[in-house]
Amino acid sequence: MKTLENMTTIEQMEEVSAKLRERACEVCAETWEDRNKKQSPHCKFGEDGICCKNCSMGPCRITPRADRGICGADAHAIAGRNYLRTVAAGTSAHSDHARELLHILHGASAGGNYRIRDEQKLLALAKEYGVPVEERDIYAVAHEVAEAGLAEFGKTFGHQNFIKRATAERQRVWREQGIEPRAIDREIATSLHMTHMGNTADAEALIRQGLRTSLSNGWGGSMLGTEVSDILFGTPTVRTTEGNLGVLEADMVNIVVHGHDPAFSEMVVAAAELREMAEYAKGKGARGINIVGLCCTANEVAMRHGVRMAGNFLQQENAILTGAVEMMCVDVQCIFPALAPLSECFHTKFVTSSPIARIPGSTYIEFRPDTAFDQAKELVKMAIDNYQNRDRDKVYIPSAKQSAVVGYPCEQIIKHLDGVANSRTDVFGTYRPAIDAIKAGVLRGAVAIVGCNNPRVRPDYSHFEIMKELLKNDILIVATGCAAQVATKAGLLNRDAKHICGAGLRRVCELVNIPPILHMGACVDISRMMLLATGIARDWEVDTTQIPVVGCAPEWMSEKAVSIANYVVSTGLDVYLGIEPQVKGSSQMMELITEGTRKITGAGYIINTDPHELVKSIIDGIEAKRAALGI
Amino acid sequence: MKTLENMTTIEQMEEVSAKLRERACEVCAETWEDRNKKQSPHCKFGEDGICCKNCSMGPCRITPRADRGICGADAHAIAGRNYLRTVAAGTSAHSDHARELLHILHGASAGGNYRIRDEQKLLALAKEYGVPVEERDIYAVAHEVAEAGLAEFGKTFGHQNFIKRATAERQRVWREQGIEPRAIDREIATSLHMTHMGNTADAEALIRQGLRTSLSNGWGGSMLGTEVSDILFGTPTVRTTEGNLGVLEADMVNIVVHGHDPAFSEMVVAAAELREMAEYAKGKGARGINIVGLCCTANEVAMRHGVRMAGNFLQQENAILTGAVEMMCVDVQCIFPALAPLSECFHTKFVTSSPIARIPGSTYIEFRPDTAFDQAKELVKMAIDNYQNRDRDKVYIPSAKQSAVVGYPCEQIIKHLDGVANSRTDVFGTYRPAIDAIKAGVLRGAVAIVGCNNPRVRPDYSHFEIMKELLKNDILIVATGCAAQVATKAGLLNRDAKHICGAGLRRVCELVNIPPILHMGACVDISRMMLLATGIARDWEVDTTQIPVVGCAPEWMSEKAVSIANYVVSTGLDVYLGIEPQVKGSSQMMELITEGTRKITGAGYIINTDPHELVKSIIDGIEAKRAALGI
Repeated sequence: MKTLENMTTIEQMEEVSAKLRERACEVCAETWEDRNKKQSPHCKFGEDGICCKNCSMGPCRITPRADRGICGADAHAIAGRNYLRTVAAGTSAHSDHARELLHILHGASAGGNYRIRDEQKLLALAKEYGVPVEERDIYAVAHEVAEAGLAEFGKTFGHQNFIKRATAERQRVWREQGIEPRAIDREIATSLHMTHMGNTADAEALIRQGLRTSLSNGWGGSMLGTEVSDILFGTPTVRTTEGNLGVLEADMVNIVVHGHDPAFSEMVVAAAELREMAEYAKGKGARGINIVGLCCTANEVAMRHGVRMAGNFLQQENAILTGAVEMMCVDVQCIFPALAPLSECFHTKFVTSSPIARIPGSTYIEFRPDTAFDQAKELVKMAIDNYQNRDRDKVYIPSAKQSAVVGYPCEQIIKHLDGVANSRTDVFGTYRPAIDAIKAGVLRGAVAIVGCNNPRVRPDYSHFEIMKELLKNDILIVATGCAAQVATKAGLLNRDAKHICGAGLRRVCELVNIPPILHMGACVDISRMMLLATGIARDWEVDTTQIPVVGCAPEWMSEKAVSIANYVVSTGLDVYLGIEPQVKGSSQMMELITEGTRKITGAGYIINTDPHELVKSIIDGIEAKRAALGI
Repeated sequence: MKTLENMTTIEQMEEVSAKLRERACEVCAETWEDRNKKQSPHCKFGEDGICCKNCSMGPCRITPRADRGICGADAHAIAGRNYLRTVAAGTSAHSDHARELLHILHGASAGGNYRIRDEQKLLALAKEYGVPVEERDIYAVAHEVAEAGLAEFGKTFGHQNFIKRATAERQRVWREQGIEPRAIDREIATSLHMTHMGNTADAEALIRQGLRTSLSNGWGGSMLGTEVSDILFGTPTVRTTEGNLGVLEADMVNIVVHGHDPAFSEMVVAAAELREMAEYAKGKGARGINIVGLCCTANEVAMRHGVRMAGNFLQQENAILTGAVEMMCVDVQCIFPALAPLSECFHTKFVTSSPIARIPGSTYIEFRPDTAFDQAKELVKMAIDNYQNRDRDKVYIPSAKQSAVVGYPCEQIIKHLDGVANSRTDVFGTYRPAIDAIKAGVLRGAVAIVGCNNPRVRPDYSHFEIMKELLKNDILIVATGCAAQVATKAGLLNRDAKHICGAGLRRVCELVNIPPILHMGACVDISRMMLLATGIARDWEVDTTQIPVVGCAPEWMSEKAVSIANYVVSTGLDVYLGIEPQVKGSSQMMELITEGTRKITGAGYIINTDPHELVKSIIDGIEAKRAALGI
């Protein structure tokens, strides 16, 4: 039986990090802790969002003495513009990720490197797009679907196709509020234009464009990214895996795949599974090849292949500091440039693969879809060849790891719910059993815990504290990204974790045979959460904003997170943040993100940097939603 | 005869500004001078480009003590990322401007608000795009051309169509260097993605993406903006007009159109020309309606209608401070949010018209293409009604104004050159007469002087000093934007200005019947300059990078200017900057923008904040180009 006692606590994680940091000291390497110290305190103007660098008259900063920039932009205009640019940048990241995958789908072929793994999902998407499927080669369909998907980025007229997936009420809200997202790239360009010197200075107009742009992410780029990943690499199913640095092996060739876009890591995983590679590794004195993941790439390959997860964002240097990593292959996003100098302190080969993420000091091998598998084999071979260079004296692999059950996309959740539906009275393929549990109060609601970790707070701690408290209060958690990995490292993605849950949630876990935290994927997969919330709302016959389901990003860090938070709010779900958005210097912006958006989308942010206070407000928020529904 | 003595000097301009500033004091209003003082000194980290706000772990700043941000990004990565974002934002502004115009073209009709004014240009563009024209209604052609143009923003495959207009050598360079621009919005999105936390940290990769993105502006969005403006509102021809605040009239209803997108101002100008409006104004005690322009909108309407120009960027508050402006109508870009509180100190109605530029405190009347003319009439009427509210005691209209000859798009320049071509030996419709003059040394070369003004230096002064010196040295000037307006205010856009030129240039001016500075339009029209340089290079049978033609932005301020500078460099033309790009904190970035790009495109920046030193280096640069050509 798993109790809190045999989980890995934050203190234990920190102990390991401290040991690894000592090793960094020994090799004269820096870690984020060192750099964070040197960067503190941070510039208050930047933190408050009231520093403007949008033209070369400046930079301008709002102070008590100077309440406007040279052009006359005040704190609200400046904070609002910075915030919108943040949303635009986050949108670009997720969406560009999807674009790459769509181009791969466009080049997929039966004999090629990339094939169709989920035909059903492809055919469903074809139907949605109006792409004919009858008597056609599946790849002809795939290519036309890819073109339709790519059109979402640049189409001249109309809105994102996927918004039709939302509840009728949501669609009405978006239409009437004028925030229906147009072409993804257009929303990004328009956001930059609006924030260019001499354009919009009205905070509400900037917020509205942020909502629209974020919708082109959550109900556009991100959703496409998830769909196409599933089509190309298979829709995830439940798998058992392990997490934390203990997944590195002392006598095997350790390859870490890190980043976000699964196109690269899928090939590396496949190459590492080849018998010839295993043989080659043995020939070099290793027991075999051990592929592990980091960050969202970890989530992607864990959900589809059970590949073990070494950790989340702030663990990336730790992996190299074990001295046991032969190669770290990265694709895009959240990759520390610091990995390059750090790798040089060890034998680790640091390989970059994307023109989007060029990092000095790395070995750059541009991954190309048509040669991907061969390139992956080369890389795996290079890693094996590097095994002999490992300095045993420098190796320290922490023992901590936890088993985890991952892989709960909507399809899988529905499957589990079908398992408890009454075959005589219930309709299958719905969220009704979950709704019934919520209505009955056995479950109080659900929280999507997402986002990064961040040195602004004690890393991972907020995640862990909030998760424990929610579970105790019979609130189911769905998690993605770094948040999901905190749960993994801690041991909360285990079916046994039911023992730390309230009686209601525990019963649900037992009945449905799930852990109390459902791992839904990478940060791009928060789109799955939008569909989950939409599905629940539809089956409940209410709007998404009414159900006792909210989002929470306790330790968010990246611009992607801000875009995500905006599309979650646009979808009508409150978002609880444990890190303050950098707009504090503008009372208008603070009002807009916490209250103002409620008038537009029915939801907003609740911000509290104290995790215990934050989780209390989440529970209150869920209970308030329940009360409004009369349950 | 116009000599330096009867031009308006910078000192005279400054005297007027000082008087107007006193008036600002009287009404307790601030001007940019006040705000600039309060904002000085500027944040050094921002000025040097080594402050990173791209994730919420930060902001991070590079110091001697902290040479990397928390993620490990160093000064080069941070300055490079900031720089690329600047290029992307500048690209978005120009391109979005074009997008609006294309949508207007798409809705143009024979009986509508917007009609085709230059059929020939439309048909030529149709031919270039492969749009059939035979036996088709001109509006059917226009709509299909608009769709083809709009596709340049979001097409899934391929590159910008207009790059085929460049010299064969340029096209080769762009192809081989991998900087051929894809869809405009895609380059913008990719730039944001590359600069997102955890992506590209390599300065050269960031610079390359900057070049590519800028090309999607100069040879994409901006060029489209210019083409479509010409199609809708007519290709400019030579017109005589006047410039500086003296164009405001004491006994007329003064309406200032300000911004960049001519779609709005064209309608206002047309409405103000209606007899019924003049009558209405007379009924209200005014002598008539006086429309004047500010910033690039001024350039647009001056070139097409001879509308007089009140001034450039830093003159916008001055216009209102005269107390004689009934209405200032703005569209997009470079509009001070400060105009709203300033207008409130007077009777001036400050009207915003675009969802891209929402400004608190303005009267917002969203301009819609289908009701544009009626809306413009309403506005003009509103301005007339406001005439009675003018407080005569508060009026001070400076007397200074200069006459100016404007309107020299490529077509007009060719026409003038045809005038001096030898009808027996020469081919018409080429730049050969100009080339011959350059080869003969009568003209030493040409400089495109462009860009804003900027309180970082003595405003307008650098422009003026550089212009005078170049003219004296037989170097022809082509100008756009705020630079062109400095020339206007000074009196340099006058044919009489030949008297301050060297003997060679004076002779050319007399022979060709042109002023020594050719007004080519708004900042979006720098695309015209690219075609001019390309045309000269083609007729010379060399590449653009070889001709003694360079660009100069003595006082640039906006992100657009950085995008422009990048596409000019990409086109192979050196760019002389009088304001430092904000990357000084990175030695790599400084090397890349001044020297590194030379290896990629054959051109780079020369930076000097001293206008006298800068102009010396321009002349040296032109002479070096001449020497390399053996002339």
